[in-house]
Amino acid sequence: MRTFRVWAPKARELELEIGGRRRALRAEPDGWWSVEADAEDGTDYAFRVDDGPPLPDPRSPWQPEGVHGPSRVVDHTLFEWHDRNWQPPPLASAIVYELHVGTFTPEGTFEAIRDKLDHLVSLGVTHVELMPVAEFSGDAGWGYDGVALFAPHHAYGGPTGLKRLVDACHQRGLAVLLDVVYNHLGPVGNYLEQYGPYFTDHYTTPWGKAINFDGPFSDPVRQFFCDNALMWLRDYHFDGLRIDAVHAMLDKSAVHFLEQLATQADALQARLGRHLVLIAESDLNDPRLVRPREAGGFGLDAQWSDDFHHALHALLTGERAGYYLDFGKLADLAKALCEAYVYDGRYSVARRRRHGRPPAGLSGHRFLGYLQNHDQVGNRATGDRSSHLMSVGALKIGAALVATSPFVPMWFQGEEWGATAPFLYFTDHADPELARAVREGRRSEFAAFGWKPQDIPDPQDVATFRRSKLEWAERERAPHRDLLDWHGRLIRLRKRNKDLLDGRLDRVRTHFDEQARWLVVERGAITVLCNFADEPREIPVDSHRPQSCLLCSQDPIRRLPGHMELPAESVVILGPDASDIDRD
Amino acid sequence: MRTFRVWAPKARELELEIGGRRRALRAEPDGWWSVEADAEDGTDYAFRVDDGPPLPDPRSPWQPEGVHGPSRVVDHTLFEWHDRNWQPPPLASAIVYELHVGTFTPEGTFEAIRDKLDHLVSLGVTHVELMPVAEFSGDAGWGYDGVALFAPHHAYGGPTGLKRLVDACHQRGLAVLLDVVYNHLGPVGNYLEQYGPYFTDHYTTPWGKAINFDGPFSDPVRQFFCDNALMWLRDYHFDGLRIDAVHAMLDKSAVHFLEQLATQADALQARLGRHLVLIAESDLNDPRLVRPREAGGFGLDAQWSDDFHHALHALLTGERAGYYLDFGKLADLAKALCEAYVYDGRYSVARRRRHGRPPAGLSGHRFLGYLQNHDQVGNRATGDRSSHLMSVGALKIGAALVATSPFVPMWFQGEEWGATAPFLYFTDHADPELARAVREGRRSEFAAFGWKPQDIPDPQDVATFRRSKLEWAERERAPHRDLLDWHGRLIRLRKRNKDLLDGRLDRVRTHFDEQARWLVVERGAITVLCNFADEPREIPVDSHRPQSCLLCSQDPIRRLPGHMELPAESVVILGPDASDIDRD
Repeated sequence: MRTFRVWAPKARELELEIGGRRRALRAEPDGWWSVEADAEDGTDYAFRVDDGPPLPDPRSPWQPEGVHGPSRVVDHTLFEWHDRNWQPPPLASAIVYELHVGTFTPEGTFEAIRDKLDHLVSLGVTHVELMPVAEFSGDAGWGYDGVALFAPHHAYGGPTGLKRLVDACHQRGLAVLLDVVYNHLGPVGNYLEQYGPYFTDHYTTPWGKAINFDGPFSDPVRQFFCDNALMWLRDYHFDGLRIDAVHAMLDKSAVHFLEQLATQADALQARLGRHLVLIAESDLNDPRLVRPREAGGFGLDAQWSDDFHHALHALLTGERAGYYLDFGKLADLAKALCEAYVYDGRYSVARRRRHGRPPAGLSGHRFLGYLQNHDQVGNRATGDRSSHLMSVGALKIGAALVATSPFVPMWFQGEEWGATAPFLYFTDHADPELARAVREGRRSEFAAFGWKPQDIPDPQDVATFRRSKLEWAERERAPHRDLLDWHGRLIRLRKRNKDLLDGRLDRVRTHFDEQARWLVVERGAITVLCNFADEPREIPVDSHRPQSCLLCSQDPIRRLPGHMELPAESVVILGPDASDIDRD
Repeated sequence: MRTFRVWAPKARELELEIGGRRRALRAEPDGWWSVEADAEDGTDYAFRVDDGPPLPDPRSPWQPEGVHGPSRVVDHTLFEWHDRNWQPPPLASAIVYELHVGTFTPEGTFEAIRDKLDHLVSLGVTHVELMPVAEFSGDAGWGYDGVALFAPHHAYGGPTGLKRLVDACHQRGLAVLLDVVYNHLGPVGNYLEQYGPYFTDHYTTPWGKAINFDGPFSDPVRQFFCDNALMWLRDYHFDGLRIDAVHAMLDKSAVHFLEQLATQADALQARLGRHLVLIAESDLNDPRLVRPREAGGFGLDAQWSDDFHHALHALLTGERAGYYLDFGKLADLAKALCEAYVYDGRYSVARRRRHGRPPAGLSGHRFLGYLQNHDQVGNRATGDRSSHLMSVGALKIGAALVATSPFVPMWFQGEEWGATAPFLYFTDHADPELARAVREGRRSEFAAFGWKPQDIPDPQDVATFRRSKLEWAERERAPHRDLLDWHGRLIRLRKRNKDLLDGRLDRVRTHFDEQARWLVVERGAITVLCNFADEPREIPVDSHRPQSCLLCSQDPIRRLPGHMELPAESVVILGPDASDIDRD
């Protein structure tokens, strides 16, 4: 016997449909309904609200036939784990690697990822971060339009496939993070509204109805999302979550949803005896997210650092469209390295308002630093990676600044070898009307930037999805091999150097010349010299600091008293340990 | 010559109309426009946006002909103040008195209030709080539909009348607070949208479009409201502001508007060398509002304490409709007295969700405590005061609990003598369509509570306004005289007793018997015994505590060892000072 429970505070009757029979659920207090029924792992079922059609369970653990199909019972106790005594490394020492299950391998499954773990381990990765895996419409998609939030996607391999992947990662010493979306639901297969007031009209989001975090009936809605987070951490052994777009989670409660979530995750951490982390994607530049709760914060562990990304990207590409309008100076990058937020109350031209506040006192390890992520690549019209936009020299500078930053470094799948595959926007909606709307929406979005419709890949074309898959063979070839080596060396350097692992932002020193386009970053005894110019530059070097060349993208042209001349678009990392010299 | 400036970031041209002539304004950076013109105090003017009709200045200092008419220049330097060296008393020692200019006196003007200051001084009031005075549509209204936010209402006496009132108050030793509305604008005469993006569609409020506190162009919008606050404090010598319904001010910026406002008010306080306070009306039960900014709060000085009101009102009236559903127990009142928030994360049946968080460590002086305010009276179908709903005995208990509370006590005009006049909802809209909508809206709002349309006073009927005016003569007659004396004695007792003036919530002790309906509140050496029952009650009295009767609404029936028997619906205040015995 198994208890089926569902929250439907406004329903008059609820039925469980299982094994070809219907059984009435009993109303419990507070809008919950329950019934006991014979069901074991693998049994399909559905609910009917007020004698309506069969609907998936809002907390369905598996949707083997997709978002519209029946739900399937999963007994989490049956899976045999091999990760006893597993503990993830701390975020402060982490190397994060973001990947999309559908495009990381030719097969696009959880299982296929397991064959690539050698690659990640040899690169030095410590934390694999999966883009959202909750069931979304169709076989292909980024995952941000999930609707069955408790069900690992059927096309990726469902619950068992996911557990096997996490288990395999842990056995290889890799922690696993999961991207979760708690700010909206996808446009197809969202049956939540038929069960209860999960959404509100008081706020808007760019992607769909806002979640009801603070209105009547919001307690069970908040708990629904908390329980979802706890499930991934508990039943799938995830080591942490990346929480999508928290700026779109509007909640004026005295206890913000994110604080409640962080509190519950902390409690689970104590019960499981295993380290857990929560990382926000945030467009708010609000240090409250990652401040401890004792200091009035929400107590999340870290947040993505878009300002550092934008500063680095704008500098290396020269792009100034959209939000890059607010970046492009060496001063911006220097500020990001020393203070995390470039916009800490400063006026933003792109936003047409002041933005952010100073993150005084926060560690750099509260921020993830990256040259790319799925959004920064995939939200471009043609899914261009940095390697499509920059010279190898510029790529190497970018990677070096990420690896030597005071932040937790993150790389996006294939970035480590400058993958040729784009990361395009792709969907797989069966409804022709929605398919058309998605296609047209994408085209009109980029028409504003001067793109012609025919140049925008059709998200619904399966070729768009396929083109986004990594070409693994290329990583053994030039110039990819060289870039891959560079990333491996940078990561190894970071992992063995205490100064680079120091998160104290107030210890970071920078010097730069905006005109000459060079930047020096000092991290303890380590000095990073970057020449962004397309011609050689003499860069001042403090003669009192260690001068051994630990790593360089090209050999320096010459050393002068108090200066070093670097080739165009190159980077040199100096330090105290001559035995570590590692030329590329 | 005078410089006229206005913000209109999307205008193509702007003209000043003054003295029958039009003059073009020059575009400045950031959407501002300006022009110099001959104009002195009293000159009428208007702006034309893109050759449209003449519009009032968004920052008009005076609208002598109402919301649609021309703006009039006011030279604030011309007024002759008599309050040099004025400093208001601290909020911790305050007795606040809320009044509505239009109904406080028969004349309904600033000037007429000056004749009533003797009454307020003799009552013991320290802070007069004016309901909103910013120009709203028509001659009569509560003021929450203001549209010309910098202009004191024409029917009240305009800028000079208001300055004379504040000046007179200061000369009598009375501080003056002003109620300001920064969450929406009224439905008539709101010309702001024709100048710029003052509003947003991302959020909703119950009363009108939400203010654009965090979208593009929000910096000048935020500064508009900050400048409004600073103007009242600087140019009208107000001692503080009461900020209406901050829960409807939606702002996801890293620096919330209220924090920015409090920061600017603090800076002004330093420049003026005069104490200023900001008090929020908040439905959030979020201590962040009044926590110091150093501790992650917004740094407001205090907030209204609706939980204390609701607990007290529900107990004394037995009402349980609407939000009173969440109150009614002695335990609620006791919790309010000890912890300010009854809902500090507890589930609220009326809200159908958990509400609030504990205000740990905050002083009781961060909260205003009251048995009534304009909302709690006026938002009832027939504007009933407590004195229309309760026995004199219950009224005296209520007043005693307010006066001996750890909060800053506040009374609403006429409450001190149990005024017979209701405080009804009234408006004066010229547009018949809007008038009808307001009338129907009011009726349908109360139809839900079983009211018949004909029993709901018509807000547009001038008689509704007139009926709400205080009858001053009655305060000399029974039973009003008696109530007035009671309030005066309570206030005097509070003002001379250090234990009652102690704001430390963790020092408040309560004992109560829910069944027997008695409550004991201990405030240092002071003991307040309340019998809420409609028959006599024996109430335990700690024999180690001071036993002198300082004030009682009725003589105790008898004293027993360890007990005191109180008549039905009565209150006794015991303390150490026998010479202070003050029977009523």
